[in-house]
Amino acid sequence: MAKLKNDRLIRALLRQPVDKTPVWIMRQAGRYLPEYRKTRERAGDFMTLCKTPELACEVTLQPLQRFPLDAAILFSDILTIPDAMGLGLSVIEKEGPKFARPVRTHAEIVNLSVPDPEVELRYVMDAIRIISRELDGKVPLIGFAGSPWTIGTYMVEGGSSKEFSLAKEMMYATPATMHLLLSKLADSITLYLNAQIAAGVNVVMIFDSWGGALSAQCYREFSLQYMQRIVAGIKPDASGNKIPVILFTKGGGLWVEQIAMSGCEAIGVDWTVDIGSVRSRTGNAVAIQGNLDTAVLYSTPQVIRQEVGKVLESYGKGNGHIFNLGHGIHPGIDPENVAVLVEAVHELSIKYH
Amino acid sequence: MAKLKNDRLIRALLRQPVDKTPVWIMRQAGRYLPEYRKTRERAGDFMTLCKTPELACEVTLQPLQRFPLDAAILFSDILTIPDAMGLGLSVIEKEGPKFARPVRTHAEIVNLSVPDPEVELRYVMDAIRIISRELDGKVPLIGFAGSPWTIGTYMVEGGSSKEFSLAKEMMYATPATMHLLLSKLADSITLYLNAQIAAGVNVVMIFDSWGGALSAQCYREFSLQYMQRIVAGIKPDASGNKIPVILFTKGGGLWVEQIAMSGCEAIGVDWTVDIGSVRSRTGNAVAIQGNLDTAVLYSTPQVIRQEVGKVLESYGKGNGHIFNLGHGIHPGIDPENVAVLVEAVHELSIKYH
Repeated sequence: MAKLKNDRLIRALLRQPVDKTPVWIMRQAGRYLPEYRKTRERAGDFMTLCKTPELACEVTLQPLQRFPLDAAILFSDILTIPDAMGLGLSVIEKEGPKFARPVRTHAEIVNLSVPDPEVELRYVMDAIRIISRELDGKVPLIGFAGSPWTIGTYMVEGGSSKEFSLAKEMMYATPATMHLLLSKLADSITLYLNAQIAAGVNVVMIFDSWGGALSAQCYREFSLQYMQRIVAGIKPDASGNKIPVILFTKGGGLWVEQIAMSGCEAIGVDWTVDIGSVRSRTGNAVAIQGNLDTAVLYSTPQVIRQEVGKVLESYGKGNGHIFNLGHGIHPGIDPENVAVLVEAVHELSIKYH
Repeated sequence: MAKLKNDRLIRALLRQPVDKTPVWIMRQAGRYLPEYRKTRERAGDFMTLCKTPELACEVTLQPLQRFPLDAAILFSDILTIPDAMGLGLSVIEKEGPKFARPVRTHAEIVNLSVPDPEVELRYVMDAIRIISRELDGKVPLIGFAGSPWTIGTYMVEGGSSKEFSLAKEMMYATPATMHLLLSKLADSITLYLNAQIAAGVNVVMIFDSWGGALSAQCYREFSLQYMQRIVAGIKPDASGNKIPVILFTKGGGLWVEQIAMSGCEAIGVDWTVDIGSVRSRTGNAVAIQGNLDTAVLYSTPQVIRQEVGKVLESYGKGNGHIFNLGHGIHPGIDPENVAVLVEAVHELSIKYH
């Protein structure tokens, strides 16, 4: 593996000194970029884009050609695992993901098998190998997976959901069935992330998009517990380097103390928390990634700089901050405003280091 | 006004001793009840149901005929105020509310006038007068309004929203315009709630459904500040009795200390927080309403009783708890399970009083 020319992200994740706060953006390879929309059009549909390693590589690298970002993130989807389990995923624009064969019964879950990442998910590993070669150590490459609870909700609901009625019905009425599903997912995700590491990613992130829909107690039992199991199973890379893990529970601001105890190196936080208060609540035990409100990017360069400044000031002096939005960038945002954001982070953060 | 035969809710709101924990359910008059669906069908559409006082009274009383609830809540909608301001509200099933004339510019907001509750919103006051007469003091009647920020998002977006891009763009890019809108809404809501009190409600509740979509700082500046202004403007009833105010910010669990300082008598909390920890964080300064995960009602009577027991145990012994769900009941829930819930609260709560 090529030595990293820009290791700001890794250093920040390990809470080591950096010259400037590293910055990357959730969904940085996405629909707000005209060049992404072109590649996607060429691919035909979203899943073909994910499943064609050369095209996944192309879109992964696009934002780096525009902005001096401190990381690349694999272009893929959190639902590749259930797709590989045979649920039949399709992603239709504006309708979101749909599974042809959702799982609703204990028997259906018993029958699910854990995918072999180098067989059913080989297209992801191939994409990572190509991206890693193309990046040639320019910046770190982040791999990722959805959390067991988050992926599980889609598998049970058959797609997106607002209330998670079916998934929560399973959780409350037949908890053993839900635990079996989450356990199989935790095993699958652990294998999947370790395969991503073997293929070349430098960091892994777990996206718990829907953990915030749970009660405090259910969050610990049905989401955090399984993420902890994954974190404990993450292996070093081929050279024996520890691979930092970022856990991000959207809407998890109430539980950051517990998330920080999961064994991860960093926690992602959404825009609803004050990042400085998260830092003091977690006692500098982990690095913190976040947390500008994405909607700030609808405003003006002047306001963007001011709001970037507030997040940096709230985190304060010292190590362990990775700048990001509080959730993924929206398709309607002007790429020029992203340039303003990245520049502002690098420029305004110098005085905190 | 008739003397209350069941004053558990009022006593709990004022943190006075009660024999059992009072319980009511957000959206208790709603689509999960077959008798509601019949009345609504007769009305033709949702807004006609809201605007016909006899029908609004009928659906308000329906859940009380089924369950021994400790409160009635006026059947209405949080968007009556912008409708009265002339934005042209229509509510279409499965599509949600839509405004024919959303407000997007400073000039449009300058032109908005504060509605006179006994003129443009007379149908609400008439409904309260009829319900109040019919209830004849059986249980207290709760009046309500949306929060300025919550109503404002609908007015700017023109309907429901996931990301609140337009409302947040206004907030970040032209804060003075957003403040003008929120200020007019705060004035309108204060008048509206005071008129509801004069017409006969015993308690008022402010629903801040979308305050939780804001950053910590924006929540204080664009939502909580205006709710405080409303609370400060609430007048006693005709007999000089103080009318308790409940503030409910969905997703506001991070900010309960600040919400509790707003001057309200009670805060509503959603299911993501541990109600016992909210009690200790707010130091018994206010009563607390909540907070069972609505999805528990998809499970079995046994699980419902167990989960009701956990919420009661988490709150613990003593005064100041009003049992409720963490948000509104879903249309797909079996009314029989609501009966189980209400019975469980009354039965299992005795030992905490």
